[in-house]
Amino acid sequence: MTITEKISFLRNRMAEEKIDAYIITKLDPHLCEYAPLHFNSVLEISGFTGSAGSVVVTAKEAGLWTDGRYYLQAETELKDTGITLHKEMEIGVKGFIDFAIDETSDGGVIAFDGRTMSVEQVRVMQDKMQKGNKTLRTDLDLVGEQWSSRPCLPENPVFDHEVCYSGVSRADKFESLRAKMKEQKADAYVITSLDDIAWLFNLRGRDIDTLFIAFAVIETDLANLFINAVKVNDVRNVLESDGVTIRDYAEVYAYLENLESDKVILIDPDRTNYAMFDKIENRKVVERKPDLTTEMKAIKNEVELSNLEKCNILDGTAMVKFIKWIKENAETGTVTECGIADKLTEFRSVAKEYLCQSFDTIAGYMENGAIIHYHAQKENCKTLDNKGIVLVDSGANYLCGTTDITRTIALGEASDEIKSDFTLVLKGHINLARAIFVYGTFGMQLDTLARVHMWRSGIDYKTGTGHGLGYCLNVHEGPQNIGRRVNTTRLESGMIQTNEPGIYRNGKHGIRTENTILVHEHADTEFGKFMAFKTISYCPIDLDLVNVSMLTCEEKEWLNAYHATVYEKLSESLDASTKEWLKNQTRAI
Amino acid sequence: MTITEKISFLRNRMAEEKIDAYIITKLDPHLCEYAPLHFNSVLEISGFTGSAGSVVVTAKEAGLWTDGRYYLQAETELKDTGITLHKEMEIGVKGFIDFAIDETSDGGVIAFDGRTMSVEQVRVMQDKMQKGNKTLRTDLDLVGEQWSSRPCLPENPVFDHEVCYSGVSRADKFESLRAKMKEQKADAYVITSLDDIAWLFNLRGRDIDTLFIAFAVIETDLANLFINAVKVNDVRNVLESDGVTIRDYAEVYAYLENLESDKVILIDPDRTNYAMFDKIENRKVVERKPDLTTEMKAIKNEVELSNLEKCNILDGTAMVKFIKWIKENAETGTVTECGIADKLTEFRSVAKEYLCQSFDTIAGYMENGAIIHYHAQKENCKTLDNKGIVLVDSGANYLCGTTDITRTIALGEASDEIKSDFTLVLKGHINLARAIFVYGTFGMQLDTLARVHMWRSGIDYKTGTGHGLGYCLNVHEGPQNIGRRVNTTRLESGMIQTNEPGIYRNGKHGIRTENTILVHEHADTEFGKFMAFKTISYCPIDLDLVNVSMLTCEEKEWLNAYHATVYEKLSESLDASTKEWLKNQTRAI
Repeated sequence: MTITEKISFLRNRMAEEKIDAYIITKLDPHLCEYAPLHFNSVLEISGFTGSAGSVVVTAKEAGLWTDGRYYLQAETELKDTGITLHKEMEIGVKGFIDFAIDETSDGGVIAFDGRTMSVEQVRVMQDKMQKGNKTLRTDLDLVGEQWSSRPCLPENPVFDHEVCYSGVSRADKFESLRAKMKEQKADAYVITSLDDIAWLFNLRGRDIDTLFIAFAVIETDLANLFINAVKVNDVRNVLESDGVTIRDYAEVYAYLENLESDKVILIDPDRTNYAMFDKIENRKVVERKPDLTTEMKAIKNEVELSNLEKCNILDGTAMVKFIKWIKENAETGTVTECGIADKLTEFRSVAKEYLCQSFDTIAGYMENGAIIHYHAQKENCKTLDNKGIVLVDSGANYLCGTTDITRTIALGEASDEIKSDFTLVLKGHINLARAIFVYGTFGMQLDTLARVHMWRSGIDYKTGTGHGLGYCLNVHEGPQNIGRRVNTTRLESGMIQTNEPGIYRNGKHGIRTENTILVHEHADTEFGKFMAFKTISYCPIDLDLVNVSMLTCEEKEWLNAYHATVYEKLSESLDASTKEWLKNQTRAI
Repeated sequence: MTITEKISFLRNRMAEEKIDAYIITKLDPHLCEYAPLHFNSVLEISGFTGSAGSVVVTAKEAGLWTDGRYYLQAETELKDTGITLHKEMEIGVKGFIDFAIDETSDGGVIAFDGRTMSVEQVRVMQDKMQKGNKTLRTDLDLVGEQWSSRPCLPENPVFDHEVCYSGVSRADKFESLRAKMKEQKADAYVITSLDDIAWLFNLRGRDIDTLFIAFAVIETDLANLFINAVKVNDVRNVLESDGVTIRDYAEVYAYLENLESDKVILIDPDRTNYAMFDKIENRKVVERKPDLTTEMKAIKNEVELSNLEKCNILDGTAMVKFIKWIKENAETGTVTECGIADKLTEFRSVAKEYLCQSFDTIAGYMENGAIIHYHAQKENCKTLDNKGIVLVDSGANYLCGTTDITRTIALGEASDEIKSDFTLVLKGHINLARAIFVYGTFGMQLDTLARVHMWRSGIDYKTGTGHGLGYCLNVHEGPQNIGRRVNTTRLESGMIQTNEPGIYRNGKHGIRTENTILVHEHADTEFGKFMAFKTISYCPIDLDLVNVSMLTCEEKEWLNAYHATVYEKLSESLDASTKEWLKNQTRAI
């Protein structure tokens, strides 16, 4: 079927069901950052391949909403489909929810698949709908009904993430979780987030990076894992002996509906899809943000921390080999932005603990580095030359942790503006890395430290400064964050997050220096408890780009000490010439 | 009547009205920071004179809740009254609201005078009461009923705050306000905050500092001022000719109740007392935080800013005379903490624009400086000596503005610890004063700059770093704030606030350096609009307490430039010897 035919089919079904506006989102039932193709109804109904987009169809209108990254792509892909592009970042453009509400007359019906929005999103929508007596209907998947070649859900086997990596057995995790459920007076706890489920059950998979498709419902006496049976063949015995009850993936909705009526059910309305909530709405529900497991897994245990040390040494070793390689090969005219990801994977994948990339490598040469979520395409990616800079943001999942690191690398002599920008970014990076702060501080209060130097020069960046990081899980993990948006999560000992200020000059260049930093206790005084960060990524910061005269003594000391540590941690695993090269890259200034 | 008799009378009335718990708060119907004695029901029923406290009476229990500042005082004052002291800052101590709820059995009644809690506070209480079918009653003032010698409401005349001071006529303010009401689709706007009313009507009084007791209801065609007629004798004509309708103070509740039923009424639930809300609850009410007028008056206009310059020069001149005097007289053994306030007033009140103190002067010698809200008492205040330091936090209301300034003054040679602490405070003060920040930044994001240096030494302070300041109004004024508590008000050009980091070592000394800083636009670049502060308090910072080796070049530059400005602004109005003295106090380092 063509897109036009699919939309026509959808409109017929809408007419049959008396629906005025039908909404299709990119969200999957687990509300995760990256979802399998099985859930990509937006692509199916519109042909739009971007990672962010929503569609609204009415009897007369069909529209797709996406952000600035995808305007050009969407215009091309929507051509001749009859779907109108709504540029959602432009001033005066109505959001897709408001559009759907406004296009529905009083007494009308708005519908969507309840699995594709969170409880909280639906509440916001209901608030907006208060006037006009409009009705919501959430039990129809009108795209799925007509989707003849819908990709299957991935069915990759899951594997045991052994205690030597996880640090705590799944039985012990269940016990801690149940103690927390008791504090919340909850009898059953619903988990839909794939990374929380993987963490809690000490399992990893291959469906989406290291994650696997499943739901979980933890009760005082049961630990139910809803997963397709074929995926757990290898681990069924060990799971069952640890008290896990394996049930079919599709069974979760009915299971919740049929739970004994006096059970109090705990959910996070931001992380639970509305269809699930619909099954339990009239029961005793306790809500809590964030999920209990989200809070628990954010604090890395001692085993995880010592594994992370190993993981970052493996990763740093690969990065050093990569940087040497790119500096030596840029001038050959054979290195492209697209080739960088492959080369990085080549260097990283020699480690036996290596699993996969933790996200698609961002490699942007000169002006492409200024595009925040740049993804080089084979057709039009740049070839590197022996001048200017390349920004490389990459990471990997290892059995022993997840990495995320950015280096901006000089390929030849750099301009004064580049050096000045690089040094301002470095000053912000160092100011955050060496911060000491009173216990109870939020990341949003420390974010300022990363920006204050560049602000003096009238420079700022629109992104956050740092995000929490999973452990052999998602590269973006809450609840903590270092950024300008309001987030009142205290930074606790054992939390890891990135430190990644940047400067992005449109059409010129992008610069970012990113390490992972670990929160630890620093001192206890008459004034309170004080915390500090330890940088746990090991990789040289390009001294060819530093304007030394802009650094204070303290900043130089930090940089020299950091480089000494990098050499100490990595040199043993390098061959003689790379070791020599690293010695120079990490020289004291 | 004794306290015991008063409580016994209260219990009899509670029994008659079938009330299980009766709550008495320190709040007045205007929910202001300082209230006239007429509203001090806590004092009347308990004899407790502290500025913060709440009382709950049940058939069997009578308790007073207050914070750490008042534990000793409350113990003394409550002796033999039968009232139990609840130390509300201690761990495990139940708050007075929770106590009242828990002491009331299911189906019981909790009562208080609805004028003594905000709408928002009552909502929190109602949320807590959800279980147990308990009822709230808010129409009884059971302390007032028996209060034979209740002080009258103050009846001081109000006066016109002329446009040469206010910068905008009241008619123009009404017009701007009505435009904002229109944006909110509101027909009537209720104002209970005394400073908002004084600002909007360009009036000042003498009831509480420069404020006067009144309510206001602004409609599209009426500007109603509810005030006792005797107070407006001198200004009735000018007010009426500017479109103000004067009504009796007590009439406001009935007026709101009788407003035409289709009118949409706008309130701020944090600033409106519950008794008022009770009259309009079932009508069309729009809520908005903060009050429109609160937002409007926070941005000082050009006339106010140029007056503030004058006001701060007057105030700085008085401060210079005072500091010289105290340094020269400390050794005589005649200067006490209590005497400091009088001397400051003597120096300030020579200015013809002077009206009154903007708050009670805090003067703490050595260890008393470490007590945050220290208020020296005649009976036991310290006499100064020619050693150590004294912290003096004071301010005044002038027709041309309000000041708030703290200096920590060396009276002789200071210890290395004092100098180190003073310099850490100064580094924080300077770091905030010279900050440049992207537009959209909140005070809570800049607060970190004032603390980051002392954090490195394991030092912190529990107070905020700065508060907004009124203009010939309250010394504490919202909505902006610089502190660790969540406040998402953007710092806008024209806002003024204090910059007052401190270090308080229990039993040793307290150090604070406080100036007023004005937000202004600094630059517009490809990355956005950038803002900066201008320090508008002029008074030397004691160089005898600075450990110069701890300052960076930039910090020394800031201090020298600040001192040069202080000398330039103040020297003309000083006699030769004071000028000479100031020259030395403001010398470059």
